[in-house]
Amino acid sequence: MVGLDADDTLWHNETYFAEAAETFVQILAPWTPEGEDVRARHDATERRNLELFGYGIKGFTLSMVETALEVSGNRVSGLAVAELLALGKRMLAHPVELLDGVAQAVDELAGRYRLVLVTKGDLIHQEQKIARSGLAERFERVEIVSEKDEATYAAVLDRLGVAPEHFCMVGNTVRSDVLPVLALGGHAVQVPYEITWAHERAAGHGAEFPVLASLAELPAWLATAPDR
Amino acid sequence: MVGLDADDTLWHNETYFAEAAETFVQILAPWTPEGEDVRARHDATERRNLELFGYGIKGFTLSMVETALEVSGNRVSGLAVAELLALGKRMLAHPVELLDGVAQAVDELAGRYRLVLVTKGDLIHQEQKIARSGLAERFERVEIVSEKDEATYAAVLDRLGVAPEHFCMVGNTVRSDVLPVLALGGHAVQVPYEITWAHERAAGHGAEFPVLASLAELPAWLATAPDR
Repeated sequence: MVGLDADDTLWHNETYFAEAAETFVQILAPWTPEGEDVRARHDATERRNLELFGYGIKGFTLSMVETALEVSGNRVSGLAVAELLALGKRMLAHPVELLDGVAQAVDELAGRYRLVLVTKGDLIHQEQKIARSGLAERFERVEIVSEKDEATYAAVLDRLGVAPEHFCMVGNTVRSDVLPVLALGGHAVQVPYEITWAHERAAGHGAEFPVLASLAELPAWLATAPDR
Repeated sequence: MVGLDADDTLWHNETYFAEAAETFVQILAPWTPEGEDVRARHDATERRNLELFGYGIKGFTLSMVETALEVSGNRVSGLAVAELLALGKRMLAHPVELLDGVAQAVDELAGRYRLVLVTKGDLIHQEQKIARSGLAERFERVEIVSEKDEATYAAVLDRLGVAPEHFCMVGNTVRSDVLPVLALGGHAVQVPYEITWAHERAAGHGAEFPVLASLAELPAWLATAPDR
């Protein structure tokens, strides 16, 4: 069985967050004290709220409003707050743009393996993106989870009746897609995205795993890799 | 197999939303024009945003901020917006309070039936509430879904390998817990809660189904009901 991550593996995602963060900085500019790093402040707010809000754009938007109030000492205008809410809504309604070669790669994989999509984040938004992607029918199961750790992958594999040694997870982040699956005794392949969210950067893990430049390389790699 | 709803079936929920809506009205009072019904405005905002935000407190909070800006013509103070964010966070962190008799009823049911919890809403918050409830171990499966309609129940039963005629869903709302399961050919029992969110009120459905006053009555009712 092959597991595929969704955001930044099948379709663009982190680039939209980075663009939104730029827009946020511009909206807040009139209330930003000299030398204040608004993006860093927002990132800190978002991480602080992660346990309560979980992943996703609604939490990102609430953290933008919270940061705007903090940076401005509650002086930010109502109009600016309204612009932040509108920015969040635009992110939620954004079309899904598949990465190059993904549609064909997923087609090829679906013909040869059982496929499961494993993605973390906001339930309704992930469902909407999967529906918009046109790829839903290729997957035997879609698992939207709140955190991609060892326990989550163990539960997913248990529900699917698949032993870890017969499972290969493929995704862009070492922290969420690779390390927990290797720890379970499964296989994992990283296909890095152009940007990695700071929260997802894994340092000093010492693990070794294959890295492919594009999902388009995965079908051929899986067909020829020695130990599966 | 017995399916149990969570919010307002196992634990209090709608009362917290009603209390929060009261607090929202008070916070917004200095900017509320004479004769404006702030609760009705918020309810309308929330319904309008439902497709984009889904169910849950993050969407409720974003809709409070949006309503505050609309009602005040963007003049609401930053301090008031900060109070709305804090109100949303208090709701998310609220302890889970089981309804009377629930712990014992779920224990009894778990000894006699396969149990599945089927709840809609925000993924991470529902997971946290289930963990806090102390009831998680009683359920064979927890299904957190974005909408409780016929297609959702059909998918859940398919994953569990249970035919609709061997399934009985129990919950407080006719719209989400009773009608879609009856439509599939399954069984359903309503245990009404003291308040029903306007969005969940089902009118003129013409369906007939058993209504129990408390979940505590369910084990005995299931044991003696004639046609299961």
